Amino acid sequence: MFHENTTCSRRTALVASELYYWHDTQNWCGSMVPSLTVQPAEHFENPETKRRLQNLVQATGLWEHLSHLRPKRAADEVIRMVHPQSHIDHLASVCERGGGDAGELTPAGPASLEIARLAVGGVIVAMDAVMTGAAENAYVLCRPPGHHALPDLAMGFCLLANAALGIRHVQKTYGLTRIAVVDWDVHHGNGTEAVFLDDPGVLTISLHQDNLFPLDSGGIGVKGAGNSNINVPLPPGSGSGAYREAFEQIVIPALDAFAPELIVLPCGYDASAVDPLGVCMLSSEDFRWMTRQVMTLADKHCQGRIVVTHEGGYSPVYVPYCGLAVLEELSGASDTLPDPYADFIANYGGQALSNDQAAAIKRAKDAHFSS
Amino acid sequence: MFHENTTCSRRTALVASELYYWHDTQNWCGSMVPSLTVQPAEHFENPETKRRLQNLVQATGLWEHLSHLRPKRAADEVIRMVHPQSHIDHLASVCERGGGDAGELTPAGPASLEIARLAVGGVIVAMDAVMTGAAENAYVLCRPPGHHALPDLAMGFCLLANAALGIRHVQKTYGLTRIAVVDWDVHHGNGTEAVFLDDPGVLTISLHQDNLFPLDSGGIGVKGAGNSNINVPLPPGSGSGAYREAFEQIVIPALDAFAPELIVLPCGYDASAVDPLGVCMLSSEDFRWMTRQVMTLADKHCQGRIVVTHEGGYSPVYVPYCGLAVLEELSGASDTLPDPYADFIANYGGQALSNDQAAAIKRAKDAHFSS
Amino acid sequence: MFHENTTCSRRTALVASELYYWHDTQNWCGSMVPSLTVQPAEHFENPETKRRLQNLVQATGLWEHLSHLRPKRAADEVIRMVHPQSHIDHLASVCERGGGDAGELTPAGPASLEIARLAVGGVIVAMDAVMTGAAENAYVLCRPPGHHALPDLAMGFCLLANAALGIRHVQKTYGLTRIAVVDWDVHHGNGTEAVFLDDPGVLTISLHQDNLFPLDSGGIGVKGAGNSNINVPLPPGSGSGAYREAFEQIVIPALDAFAPELIVLPCGYDASAVDPLGVCMLSSEDFRWMTRQVMTLADKHCQGRIVVTHEGGYSPVYVPYCGLAVLEELSGASDTLPDPYADFIANYGGQALSNDQAAAIKRAKDAHFSS
Amino acid sequence: MFHENTTCSRRTALVASELYYWHDTQNWCGSMVPSLTVQPAEHFENPETKRRLQNLVQATGLWEHLSHLRPKRAADEVIRMVHPQSHIDHLASVCERGGGDAGELTPAGPASLEIARLAVGGVIVAMDAVMTGAAENAYVLCRPPGHHALPDLAMGFCLLANAALGIRHVQKTYGLTRIAVVDWDVHHGNGTEAVFLDDPGVLTISLHQDNLFPLDSGGIGVKGAGNSNINVPLPPGSGSGAYREAFEQIVIPALDAFAPELIVLPCGYDASAVDPLGVCMLSSEDFRWMTRQVMTLADKHCQGRIVVTHEGGYSPVYVPYCGLAVLEELSGASDTLPDPYADFIANYGGQALSNDQAAAIKRAKDAHFSS
Ligand SMILES: [Zn+2]
Ligand SMILES: [Zn+2]
Ligand SMILES: [Zn+2]
Ligand SMILES: [Zn+2]
Repeated sequence: MFHENTTCSRRTALVASELYYWHDTQNWCGSMVPSLTVQPAEHFENPETKRRLQNLVQATGLWEHLSHLRPKRAADEVIRMVHPQSHIDHLASVCERGGGDAGELTPAGPASLEIARLAVGGVIVAMDAVMTGAAENAYVLCRPPGHHALPDLAMGFCLLANAALGIRHVQKTYGLTRIAVVDWDVHHGNGTEAVFLDDPGVLTISLHQDNLFPLDSGGIGVKGAGNSNINVPLPPGSGSGAYREAFEQIVIPALDAFAPELIVLPCGYDASAVDPLGVCMLSSEDFRWMTRQVMTLADKHCQGRIVVTHEGGYSPVYVPYCGLAVLEELSGASDTLPDPYADFIANYGGQALSNDQAAAIKRAKDAHFSS
Repeated sequence: MFHENTTCSRRTALVASELYYWHDTQNWCGSMVPSLTVQPAEHFENPETKRRLQNLVQATGLWEHLSHLRPKRAADEVIRMVHPQSHIDHLASVCERGGGDAGELTPAGPASLEIARLAVGGVIVAMDAVMTGAAENAYVLCRPPGHHALPDLAMGFCLLANAALGIRHVQKTYGLTRIAVVDWDVHHGNGTEAVFLDDPGVLTISLHQDNLFPLDSGGIGVKGAGNSNINVPLPPGSGSGAYREAFEQIVIPALDAFAPELIVLPCGYDASAVDPLGVCMLSSEDFRWMTRQVMTLADKHCQGRIVVTHEGGYSPVYVPYCGLAVLEELSGASDTLPDPYADFIANYGGQALSNDQAAAIKRAKDAHFSS
Repeated sequence: MFHENTTCSRRTALVASELYYWHDTQNWCGSMVPSLTVQPAEHFENPETKRRLQNLVQATGLWEHLSHLRPKRAADEVIRMVHPQSHIDHLASVCERGGGDAGELTPAGPASLEIARLAVGGVIVAMDAVMTGAAENAYVLCRPPGHHALPDLAMGFCLLANAALGIRHVQKTYGLTRIAVVDWDVHHGNGTEAVFLDDPGVLTISLHQDNLFPLDSGGIGVKGAGNSNINVPLPPGSGSGAYREAFEQIVIPALDAFAPELIVLPCGYDASAVDPLGVCMLSSEDFRWMTRQVMTLADKHCQGRIVVTHEGGYSPVYVPYCGLAVLEELSGASDTLPDPYADFIANYGGQALSNDQAAAIKRAKDAHFSS
Repeated sequence: MFHENTTCSRRTALVASELYYWHDTQNWCGSMVPSLTVQPAEHFENPETKRRLQNLVQATGLWEHLSHLRPKRAADEVIRMVHPQSHIDHLASVCERGGGDAGELTPAGPASLEIARLAVGGVIVAMDAVMTGAAENAYVLCRPPGHHALPDLAMGFCLLANAALGIRHVQKTYGLTRIAVVDWDVHHGNGTEAVFLDDPGVLTISLHQDNLFPLDSGGIGVKGAGNSNINVPLPPGSGSGAYREAFEQIVIPALDAFAPELIVLPCGYDASAVDPLGVCMLSSEDFRWMTRQVMTLADKHCQGRIVVTHEGGYSPVYVPYCGLAVLEELSGASDTLPDPYADFIANYGGQALSNDQAAAIKRAKDAHFSS
């Protein structure tokens, strides 16, 4: 196996669970409910888009260099840190009747609420591991995703606000007052934004393709209490150059200024060049680079504490290589698997920062730093 | 294409519809609802098990030698010839809420009731074609299947009683008084039996694996009004020899005595050697042979009038060859495609009639003819 | 069915064949050969990405408003109009040994050469129908695709140069001296370009994402004999605005000036917003609009003669709606099916022409018209 | 998780590897090579039929009660204990050219030889664990299977003779002189039989459906050196009653008389009632019962030493429950997961021993014990 002789300079915990892959998003046609003019197919957010990352981590052998944590089931009282009981009850009723749309564009199957509880519980276990020092950083390879879930509405394939619940747990349990969120999923992290918009103790940063999903969400004008929310909408087609510019101009200085005690990464891979939903152009090397930047800041400010929650990413063939790169970087692996797509993507036209992209980033920067 | 130069001695109508393949049986694990101990998978009765028959008929070219009929949507008043309105309303409510189990072991998706209406309408169109002489015989390649549907209960993957509704239509429209049903699906044709048990004008014959599904159904003691119901439960493992014996001892003489004006074949292929649900051992050549026997009787008694409704059969790789053989035989095709599995299966041990099988057939025969 | 009462103002021929869906691209991981570090998966160019268009055309009923042509098998001497015999022999040997990579990134199965012959034959049948007036325009829903195939190299999922062979056939049979090709597949139409680069009688126009595939191909400097080749490389992220600008600034005036006797559209849908390989952002409405522009020019110059060959497009959920829109437009359907994704995509940020896109288009325009 | 509070009375080792699921059996149509009359599909022996057992063992939590061993790659010299170098070289050449049929009905992909080496290595690791006492018994969840592989021919989906190689390793390393093999895969264990036919130190017993595969193999007349080979061909349709009778009449007394120092179980689940290839009728409870019988004998004769190699079994929905039952039994789990199919199958008609089955078993018994 490739990583057999790898050494890892960091203690990275991985939270995975077979049951995460049993969340059933039904035979929707991508993101549309079947009908007489919509043929049943496979939902974009299907198990293989996440399972195959686990497969690759196991097949290459990196798996054996990580420490493994088992998720606990999140009880109602845990979930109520973000969601009202009525939301939990609604999800329960959808599951009981055999599944269906649990909110907006959010299919669920009979077992989905229980599995969503495990996703939340997985984030909490990861948070505890990192806060207690049992691990330096942690990756939660969970389903369903969470960053679109609003307190009272399942949305965008998300049932419960995984990362937000983990943060509330950390605030409550460990009393942290400065937690930063960097969300590079190609869609706006509207759920996380909504939960913490009035909480200056949580800096929420979202890099996303401009106005992709949700509609009319993620604009630069939404700044949050104490300027604690930063949206960086990027033009479609943004690649390596644009994301690096956004990091250097906005993410890095903002994080540095905030001096977080913990960094949370709601990590989607749908900004990859091979994603069916995003129209951006990253390769695994870009995800690796972004991870490294965040790690540098985490090392500087908070003993390297990072918790990654797996969010979107809909390419069953490419998510594995992007996720592996993040895990190799998090764990300080001594060698890295060559991604068969990486050179291919790096050579795509338009990877360098374009004028339009630079202008968009400058607008986001000005909105934040001039405020 | 293989059948390019085929000539067909009969005018055979085929009713097919793309929408039949859009009936969504969800991600059940075979025939079980997903849960925390049942991983989602594919339902046994999925589109590919029927679509691939259509594919093969098209790829080989036989398609062009058939006449094609388009199904009509069956309105409530048509369906009420067998089912109460409450059943239709129940199915509608299941579909409206996004799908789920419509009865017992019967998944449905949002469009399933409308598609089931097309299945019924397809059978009626086929019946009309055969009764008016527009076609000599007809094959309805429909989904969902129908022979397990009870008047007030969706059951065994069946929403509406396709064949039974077609028969009621024929009785009402054309005044036939002797219609015979030969059901060689590996499961008992309990729905058709239930509809016509008190109707001596419909002879219902079911050959099936002994007590496979439904439980405690299909016994030799259920004889119907005027001895018009014949059950032939066969031991598991029954193959070519057993089915031929059952035909020669029971099906052929019973049909001959009844002298039907129309023969209806609820035709499943789950008695094939490659089926996951049946434990019988037929090859496409056996389905061809049984078809020929029925045709001989139809020629003798009713100008060859036969309507075939596609029922079970859960092997995506083998149903196509079995169904093609039936269609070749129905249409009197001048040449037949070699089935790559046929010799393989014909050589399986136990294809000859066994003592146990002979005894079971004798019991069924005695129950009917001695009564 | 939706299109049941549709009327069509044009006679459109459709060439489809079940066998097109039997071309086997094996269990490649997207576009990579499986290995110990590449898990087998599904090739990007798999049957469902094309079959589901046929399914939708059938399910909605537009199918019945088209005339249907059956492809003929292209013999060696036909294929030799573009490819040397050695290329055919090489493909035959790959198929005979059970399949594998037939060139560069081009998987083939045992039957793939025979199916590729049917794709070529389908294009020729379509060309004949349009040239003889049997149809006003025609759509060839074929696999494998063709626009990357070089005379002596299978490339980019393409075995034989379908469209180029059809054009050679038209030149030879009907003596046309001005044939235009508009290729809006998101990848450069390098194969077609290569075949006709020295032939001023064929104007080849390719709109494509800048330097996506093949590497270092499709630049604005490649102009062809008599300025008969136009490349329009567009920045990644190009959407509705960019494509319309490219049409208005380049495609329409160039076609108008060339006054073609026939227009051929190697039509890929991988510039759609939902494609895994392209990073562009079109909706079905954009494909509809582009089709309409070409039709207007075809009406003006060549009695509406258009032949469309299906090329790339890798979203099984969205290709159907894009292709349906093209077929509705070609056939002058009186009503059009609402695309469930269209509004969603139209609202994405960045659909309007950007400065970078305008500049790129201006460069391509200047390169052509100033020469 | 179901098995969370389970206690296990035995130390059971499990050998699994993600790479086992990367053996690529290509898009064969069941067991047939695609062609112009055979649509590509999925090979019967595909990863999901084995992966889903691992999934269930993980999801229910039994996984955590097992000890996990990692397979080693078997070098040529190890494989040469059974196969000539020419066989290895042939497999290497098939893989190098991208895959294809490696023998008779045995598809392979580019990485298949390397994965087959891991299957062999997994068996050897398991043998060592059991022989050294590191584990009481062991289960090797490997792919590709092995029991049909002949020394010089890949056959029946099997590339290398996994179990036979493990036995040769044990003979050589630990000097055992009495090793028993009980193969209840529904097909005849012809490969294992062939390897040890002349070796009285290995008692090979195969229970299989009469003349299923390979053709004309597995008859009662093949007795081996020192009467060390026992074939028990069972009639199609054999269920719980037949298999228990075969155990009580033949397997148990034969094992008891042989007094083995190690028992090897080439364990297929294709005799299950839900298998597409076998026409038998077992439930998970029957596999559990057979396992228990073998364990009782192993306890009596060889300190419980059993090594199970996973062979056939082609139902992705039912293999998991059968395999889980075997693992629960092997490990002495204090509670067992209810199989959702078990009651259903137990109630099938014909589960009791039939006259034909009794007669067949008696013939096999007489052939062995009277010799
Ligand atoms: Zn996303
Ligand atoms: Zn059935
Ligand atoms: Zn393309
Ligand atoms: Zn087997």
